[in-house]
Amino acid sequence: MEIDKLKRIVRNTYLTDRVRLENDAEHSWHLAVMAMLLSEYAADASIDVLKVIKMVLIHDLVEIDAGDALVYDEAARAEKARFEQAAADRIFTLLPEDQGAQLRALWEEFEARRTGEARFAAALDRLQPLLHNYHTEGGAWREHGITLDRVLERNGHMAEGSPALWEYAERFIRDAAERGWLPTGPAEG
Amino acid sequence: MEIDKLKRIVRNTYLTDRVRLENDAEHSWHLAVMAMLLSEYAADASIDVLKVIKMVLIHDLVEIDAGDALVYDEAARAEKARFEQAAADRIFTLLPEDQGAQLRALWEEFEARRTGEARFAAALDRLQPLLHNYHTEGGAWREHGITLDRVLERNGHMAEGSPALWEYAERFIRDAAERGWLPTGPAEG
Repeated sequence: MEIDKLKRIVRNTYLTDRVRLENDAEHSWHLAVMAMLLSEYAADASIDVLKVIKMVLIHDLVEIDAGDALVYDEAARAEKARFEQAAADRIFTLLPEDQGAQLRALWEEFEARRTGEARFAAALDRLQPLLHNYHTEGGAWREHGITLDRVLERNGHMAEGSPALWEYAERFIRDAAERGWLPTGPAEG
Repeated sequence: MEIDKLKRIVRNTYLTDRVRLENDAEHSWHLAVMAMLLSEYAADASIDVLKVIKMVLIHDLVEIDAGDALVYDEAARAEKARFEQAAADRIFTLLPEDQGAQLRALWEEFEARRTGEARFAAALDRLQPLLHNYHTEGGAWREHGITLDRVLERNGHMAEGSPALWEYAERFIRDAAERGWLPTGPAEG
């Protein structure tokens, strides 16, 4: 019942019908299905797909307490990282000790982005909102005055987890800029 | 992008804060995390957990076209079963042929409820809304005038997938009846 609360944590990504913002539970589900279908594009061909799926399913549970922060808002993200450790202490210890330790380790591995599984999971975690922003003609990018440079800079690490998916993403990101959905100059104001 | 539409398919289950109904994407995510954490309670100890997780992640995709139907509304469910085949024909063929065939087979296996994986997945698919109904003091049961007899009758197949989880569910279902959240007499009107 505790994880039901993740359905209330609202992200900075619009659904493609643009009616409302997405929540963390939906986002985690979307990534898990992407992991099922896109694992052939992982940089490391030997990754354990079950581990990637588990990772993306639980990667945002700490946001039940710590909330979501825009990937382009670096001050908010530094602040949030501190809250996330306390959130992990509370949430993962609700489980029996062995399961709590397993989930905590999976989350720490995701955050550290050093294994093939974590890097691929992180690539999916970036690809999905990029696709939503593209398919809503700029969506949250426009709302927050995000520029092409920052999108390329903040998402370039996708290439570590999946060069093929980053190449694909870079193409539609540049197309978004050409269509005028993503300003190429510095952010205003 | 196609599966983003599942986030708009609203179910007959309230979130535990009772503010709104749950959607299919959130529900599928909830089941996937439950599969990760509860697989030790499966009737068949040799089940492939990755298969169960994949099954619950995709089990409701056909509802993008066919919509959700209350588990207690048998007329609507018979009608819906016909639409679901057409939905599967459209949705799974959006994928490359090998992946489409894999997902279709996984969905058919879930629907047929004959393997250990499908039976356990079906048990989770019943347990989660039962828990939500219990934790919202009757929630959708009250709204639709559902009685104790029907809840026990429609969910009893949980025992095939997980005797332990059905025993647990039966206990809280009977407790809900004692608390007055689930009438024991025949439905009125």
